[in-house]
Amino acid sequence: MTAYEKLAAHEHETWALAQVMGRLGWDQETMMPRGAAAQRGEEMAALESVLHARRSDPKLGEWLEAAKAPDAKGEALLRHARRSYARTTKVPAALAAELARVTSVAQGVWAEARAKDDVAHFLPTLERVIALRREEASALATDGALYDALLDDYEPGTSSAEIGAMFDRMRPRLVALVDKVLGAETQPAALSGSFNAEGQMRLSRKLAEITGYDFSRGRLDLAVHPFSSGSGSDVRITTRVAEGDPFNCFYSTIHECGHACYEQGIAPEFAFSPLGEGASMGVHESQSRIYENQFGRSRAFSGYLFEQMRGEFGDLGIGDAQAFYGAVNRVNTGYIRTEADEVHYNLHIMMRFDLERALIAGDLEAGDLEAAWNTRFLKDFGVAVDKPSNGMLQDVHWSVGLFGYFPTYALGNVYAGCLMQALRGDLPDLDAQLATGEWSAATGWLREKVQVHGGLMEPRETITQACGFEPSEAPLLEYLEAKFGEIYRV
Amino acid sequence: MTAYEKLAAHEHETWALAQVMGRLGWDQETMMPRGAAAQRGEEMAALESVLHARRSDPKLGEWLEAAKAPDAKGEALLRHARRSYARTTKVPAALAAELARVTSVAQGVWAEARAKDDVAHFLPTLERVIALRREEASALATDGALYDALLDDYEPGTSSAEIGAMFDRMRPRLVALVDKVLGAETQPAALSGSFNAEGQMRLSRKLAEITGYDFSRGRLDLAVHPFSSGSGSDVRITTRVAEGDPFNCFYSTIHECGHACYEQGIAPEFAFSPLGEGASMGVHESQSRIYENQFGRSRAFSGYLFEQMRGEFGDLGIGDAQAFYGAVNRVNTGYIRTEADEVHYNLHIMMRFDLERALIAGDLEAGDLEAAWNTRFLKDFGVAVDKPSNGMLQDVHWSVGLFGYFPTYALGNVYAGCLMQALRGDLPDLDAQLATGEWSAATGWLREKVQVHGGLMEPRETITQACGFEPSEAPLLEYLEAKFGEIYRV
Repeated sequence: MTAYEKLAAHEHETWALAQVMGRLGWDQETMMPRGAAAQRGEEMAALESVLHARRSDPKLGEWLEAAKAPDAKGEALLRHARRSYARTTKVPAALAAELARVTSVAQGVWAEARAKDDVAHFLPTLERVIALRREEASALATDGALYDALLDDYEPGTSSAEIGAMFDRMRPRLVALVDKVLGAETQPAALSGSFNAEGQMRLSRKLAEITGYDFSRGRLDLAVHPFSSGSGSDVRITTRVAEGDPFNCFYSTIHECGHACYEQGIAPEFAFSPLGEGASMGVHESQSRIYENQFGRSRAFSGYLFEQMRGEFGDLGIGDAQAFYGAVNRVNTGYIRTEADEVHYNLHIMMRFDLERALIAGDLEAGDLEAAWNTRFLKDFGVAVDKPSNGMLQDVHWSVGLFGYFPTYALGNVYAGCLMQALRGDLPDLDAQLATGEWSAATGWLREKVQVHGGLMEPRETITQACGFEPSEAPLLEYLEAKFGEIYRV
Repeated sequence: MTAYEKLAAHEHETWALAQVMGRLGWDQETMMPRGAAAQRGEEMAALESVLHARRSDPKLGEWLEAAKAPDAKGEALLRHARRSYARTTKVPAALAAELARVTSVAQGVWAEARAKDDVAHFLPTLERVIALRREEASALATDGALYDALLDDYEPGTSSAEIGAMFDRMRPRLVALVDKVLGAETQPAALSGSFNAEGQMRLSRKLAEITGYDFSRGRLDLAVHPFSSGSGSDVRITTRVAEGDPFNCFYSTIHECGHACYEQGIAPEFAFSPLGEGASMGVHESQSRIYENQFGRSRAFSGYLFEQMRGEFGDLGIGDAQAFYGAVNRVNTGYIRTEADEVHYNLHIMMRFDLERALIAGDLEAGDLEAAWNTRFLKDFGVAVDKPSNGMLQDVHWSVGLFGYFPTYALGNVYAGCLMQALRGDLPDLDAQLATGEWSAATGWLREKVQVHGGLMEPRETITQACGFEPSEAPLLEYLEAKFGEIYRV
């Protein structure tokens, strides 16, 4: 066997074991009996230690030195393998273990703090997590750019300077749009009433099928926080049901289908290699967001959903498709990122991006985070935070060390805006199709242009090649201004 | 760290990873989407290779040389570790891999052959599996006793000579009992009718709770072939539902609860070590069979079940508890081992034991197995086999290489008979308790005497200490003769 072949065989097994790890995570959130939590922690730690040993195996270094890629796929495999090996070996094993230990406990501490609205309970843990991630970033960064070293893990090939500049261009137009929309004369009514859980799950399954999600290679279950999980031929999704909020269920399902269809759409020959999963968090989010928003919350598809919901639940208390479209896209200032409308969503991200950059740079102390958060929220959203669980304690991310992750959500929205513009150019009758619940041309376009390539190209290159132009925030902003300008007549 | 401590830490991680492997097996039979089978095979192969490397790690050999056990638990840990290391290292890695590869394919070939009643389709595969297992046994056996080397994997500390002698003592009394029972003047009527699936599952859950199964550390799902899975604080059970055969559902549930309660009952400090699972297949089966038969099919408990079923399903078409007790324990000559009554069951095992010993010894060729099976079945059961799926193709065991496994079922029955005799001595009002659906004294006795010890002692020692006497077949035979003599008035 050549060095390349040995490397590819090693990656094959590592990928398979990483799938097993993902399946344990899925089981934990959907099936695991509550009394098994401690044992599960040990099981996952044991498997993580196997994975870490494989990813930092010195033999990998030798093979990477000697390997010659036979083709473009091989080049991409080497690129992924080099990046992973460099990252894994730069971080001392003791630091990696300490990070794993601290963050696994930190999530529980955060959950308690959030439940009790007790920032002080969380602060020592947060400080420790920040210190460890700064230490890790120092080991990874070549040029002292700590935050960029972390960002690189989720979105290779971008920088905080680029993202910051883009956010600076986006902010004024989003703020102006919010002001116009919230000042509009007529505001759409919200959906109200109770919608039985069985009906929501039945319609969720139907929606998943409409998105092209392949149930023969996946399944739909319930989870407290919806997620998708797995690659290759076992990609599972979850959703949640609240009888008073069926939109949450349906749009969670569609969002997770976006992630899952991406994984299911990757060329089968990329499975069992680092190419056999999405190119980055940002590209992943572009798929979930275009499914959820540009398709799912379009005027055309909301008309179809209106009829489906009336068929399932009877009278909705909403008179016509126009009013339903307004209810689906209702803009209101809320505290919570995950419940934010399309107009507010990126403002939440920008705020977190600035705060977490300051935390990692050492310009902001954890003890000053609450004040910084609340000041900024008042400034950007015009509302005072009423309690920490609606403020700095709302997201799990920082407790588990996910610094550098938030901007990929906004990047996903930006990429979704670009893809939608390109897709509309290629599919002029898109709305007529969405209006009948027919997504196959749209999802087929995404599969061919984006999904099938998996990790073959760098993230930004994946989007550029799909769109035929360099991605920018402009298409997203134009889409938002046109859509919400029309709904709110502003 | 001392050599013993290093060894124990190694065993801790290996145990945790083995749990993960078990969970993958559970998922495959209950949750996995059908399109994920090939990928799952790769995932399990990757994890199996990790486990094999850990179990044959030369460091283990060094630690075993140097380790000094600090206490009785440590002695037992060393005993298990020595046995496992010796077995793993004696078998060449290439042979182990070939066995894994061949048996994973063989199961599919067997299933096809059974579905088509086509012995010829299965024979080349069976021959290959036998040849590989013979080769493995040759590597393991110290004295040329091939079959004993395989048996030792499932039931350490016993021999085929001992089991054969015991079966020779059991056979005439069982045959005599079958003859008397089947010649009895009145035969109990069978249960007939249709019983809705929801009701069966509802009552299954209730029965599981009655057995003491702890749902906070487990869960109940459906599977084609019921099984239990897992150790420590995540022990899951499955059952099956056929609307025409509720007894199959209820007694499958109770049987699997016996296995699962054993695992759940093991002392928590034994978890993450080889002591943290059942002592052997035979001891495991003693728990599942005593729950299923001695408790579940007792006159006392069947009266309780009669009322529960009437409550769930209404009139059963069976007039009273006496007739219901007869229906639960109806003896009839069937082809299928897994559906056999208590009287016939061990005759099925004895037949398989003799045939598989001859196959492994080389005294019987695979090509002659069908004729040998059919001749023996006619002799022992008085009925001619009508088709291979009712004959030599009925069990999955041989296709996956499980030679030496069958006798542990009968050993479990024998152990259950001994335990029941001892337990009755300690709990004189057992029947009064079972009659009200109260199992806690009985299961508490088993937990204290058997289950809590896990793998601390050798299998036979576990039973001897629990009973206060050396196990033999006598208590089981006396129990069967008394029970069925009374039901059939013979």
